[in-house]
Amino acid sequence: MDLASVVSAESLVEPQGRYLADLMGRGVQGTADAVVLPSSVEEVSAVMRWCYENDVPLTARGGGTGLAGGAIPVHGGIVIGFERLNKIRQFDPLLWRMHVEAGVTTGDIQRLARESGLRFPPDPGAAEISQVGGNIACNAGGPHAFKYGVTGTWVTGLEVVIPPGEIVRVGGPIRKDVAGYDLKNLLVGSEGTLGLITAAWLKLVPAPELELPVIGLYRDAEAGISAIERVLGSGVVPAAIEYLDGVTLQFSGGAYPFGLPDDAAFMVITEADGSYAEARRVAAELKEALAEDAVAVHAPLEPSEVTELWRWRGGAAFGILAQRGGAYSEDIAVPLDKLRDVARETLEIGERHNVPALSFGHAGDGNIHSTFLFSPDDLEEEQRADDACHELFELALRLGGTISGEHGVGWLKRGQLEHQLGPAGFDLHNRIKQTFDPKNLLNPGKKQ
Amino acid sequence: MDLASVVSAESLVEPQGRYLADLMGRGVQGTADAVVLPSSVEEVSAVMRWCYENDVPLTARGGGTGLAGGAIPVHGGIVIGFERLNKIRQFDPLLWRMHVEAGVTTGDIQRLARESGLRFPPDPGAAEISQVGGNIACNAGGPHAFKYGVTGTWVTGLEVVIPPGEIVRVGGPIRKDVAGYDLKNLLVGSEGTLGLITAAWLKLVPAPELELPVIGLYRDAEAGISAIERVLGSGVVPAAIEYLDGVTLQFSGGAYPFGLPDDAAFMVITEADGSYAEARRVAAELKEALAEDAVAVHAPLEPSEVTELWRWRGGAAFGILAQRGGAYSEDIAVPLDKLRDVARETLEIGERHNVPALSFGHAGDGNIHSTFLFSPDDLEEEQRADDACHELFELALRLGGTISGEHGVGWLKRGQLEHQLGPAGFDLHNRIKQTFDPKNLLNPGKKQ
Repeated sequence: MDLASVVSAESLVEPQGRYLADLMGRGVQGTADAVVLPSSVEEVSAVMRWCYENDVPLTARGGGTGLAGGAIPVHGGIVIGFERLNKIRQFDPLLWRMHVEAGVTTGDIQRLARESGLRFPPDPGAAEISQVGGNIACNAGGPHAFKYGVTGTWVTGLEVVIPPGEIVRVGGPIRKDVAGYDLKNLLVGSEGTLGLITAAWLKLVPAPELELPVIGLYRDAEAGISAIERVLGSGVVPAAIEYLDGVTLQFSGGAYPFGLPDDAAFMVITEADGSYAEARRVAAELKEALAEDAVAVHAPLEPSEVTELWRWRGGAAFGILAQRGGAYSEDIAVPLDKLRDVARETLEIGERHNVPALSFGHAGDGNIHSTFLFSPDDLEEEQRADDACHELFELALRLGGTISGEHGVGWLKRGQLEHQLGPAGFDLHNRIKQTFDPKNLLNPGKKQ
Repeated sequence: MDLASVVSAESLVEPQGRYLADLMGRGVQGTADAVVLPSSVEEVSAVMRWCYENDVPLTARGGGTGLAGGAIPVHGGIVIGFERLNKIRQFDPLLWRMHVEAGVTTGDIQRLARESGLRFPPDPGAAEISQVGGNIACNAGGPHAFKYGVTGTWVTGLEVVIPPGEIVRVGGPIRKDVAGYDLKNLLVGSEGTLGLITAAWLKLVPAPELELPVIGLYRDAEAGISAIERVLGSGVVPAAIEYLDGVTLQFSGGAYPFGLPDDAAFMVITEADGSYAEARRVAAELKEALAEDAVAVHAPLEPSEVTELWRWRGGAAFGILAQRGGAYSEDIAVPLDKLRDVARETLEIGERHNVPALSFGHAGDGNIHSTFLFSPDDLEEEQRADDACHELFELALRLGGTISGEHGVGWLKRGQLEHQLGPAGFDLHNRIKQTFDPKNLLNPGKKQ
């Protein structure tokens, strides 16, 4: 029985290139026998049953904006995309909740919530392209995760298909549930290796009236990280605490909307939010905490400036990529007292491997994008950048951190997990995989 | 080889009654061959290895304040208590985090945080007795979970012992981690059936400057629940949204600190918190939302009154229990649009089974303590109350909710889980148990 007999004709498309890679999968492109774009959960179930009966690998993809190669079909088989499962099944603004299919873009959910005075807080990069199912499967983060938590925080229930094709609902439109084991959070962040998320119940929260970024600029990392520590000690809860190091500013500071002073070699971005009065109060505290030793403090007030700031911050990664054409940008997370070590040792690792290095990211969560640049034409340089990444993973573990704070393990970090989890933890991890997917057909080779 | 050879002499105590029951396990008392109170994670590991080698059940208990019989050793064997594992291993107030052993009381953690201007938000009942390990194992809730989330929200890492005795660390003092499957949240709420939690890394948050409860009193449930809906629609985020129905007020309203008007038959308690100005702003919004159709609105301002209010609210359950000597107080959670159904149908179920019925609880989370009273001397009445509970569980599922929002399944809700999870979900649940605990020795008979 071939696949065409279990799915509708319009669900089957040719395996074009755009279904075989992700946003920054280091040029890796997978292969697939077919791409299926189902339009119902029953069709997802049918595809999985077919794969399970025929021992065919099944790799899920959302918007393809992943940064760890998680959606690349490295072992061939079937690619399943969710772009046609894109209905808002229910939206109850007065009850702060939404029920959406996996293929709805995160940007659409944010917008719909905002129109009703609510907020869907997760703000990963590429929200306009990334689908909420993919964001849940990666438990995506973003700058405002510091105050609001990562994607999983806002998911109260999931509709999933688990091998060999069972449709299961875990949780629902309910805000508390301790009945069964927490299968919901087990599926969140499982990168398509345990089950396929077809729909989610999301929790929302009233939107803040005002968002006021406060930016501190410093001569060096030491002064900047001391400022972050003062922010944490100030007694207020910022919505975001980001940093960009000197090299990052060198490469992307030209487009910074409020003008970079010549002696600025480290930037701390914080944000106050809440009611008008509360956002202003918090912004004043942040200003005071950031001012000491600062070269300059910028506090844009206009909503258009705020949008411009975050657009620039979101685009910084692309400015960096443009420098040499290639960049390995990782996402380690460490205890907050280790921020200094990450900022310094990232540069040292780069020096040791003779590749340009820089770091930026979600400092308040200790989640830093240490990045190594290379020219894609220089295979030897690329190899050195890859070696630098491996040393970075060792650094993260030595500092008591994790190899991945928000991108996931995917394909690019393969082989690293065992070092982090230790033999007993890794064994448990693998037994969980085995429990869900005994034939190892769901996104094989990933999250390993 | 007997148990005494693998643990120190002072860790072994006689199996006295207080180690064999929980706070409201319906009089059920278990049996045990020995009670072990280890003083190190290595000793916990040794006990588990011994149990695994000798096929002896191992039941963990914290402070014994559980409400579902989860800590009762119903299959005998060894009881393991954590009262001697009670060190604060590390406290970094400037980094908003604490590392504690499982036996530290939740009250001590709250106090220690508060002394440094921070808050550990989980506020289950009996915080002075309950241990954080037990609160994590049950993923305990409480009134302020509405704004701050349940216990698991504040746990960034766990040290656990998993069968046959491996010491594993999942997460740590890090705020983001998507490397492995979310074993941390799988262990949170697992009620001692997957592993034994020996220590936890906790996340803290700056404490609010001010807490201002605003209480609305209504003639009936319809008016009160409409007020809750107005609160949700008001655009502010209250710290808590509680309700107490008319029968609850009849039994416990006498001690209400601000005087219950004669025609008050439904109470809604909300709370505003934050900076001084923010708490006052939110309190004003809450007052406006609650005032419509209210018999009275109370807004205590003094910190001593606030303490008194929550002490009264926390004690309401005991006032109810005192009515007839026995009470089955459940913890179903439902979608927020079903609050009316729960309030009304709880009473109808009581009528059908001829037992006094009432409901109160965490309305903002849809997590309601529907309660059926009986005299412990009247076995037939107790049976009717038990039947009423079973009908209540059916109601929760019919309304799209869960049989347990915060107490857990434990022993008392045995047999219910399958109805909630469905065959495929329940099978998955059981396979997870099997993956961790292939010999079914950890707290056997629970969370089933």
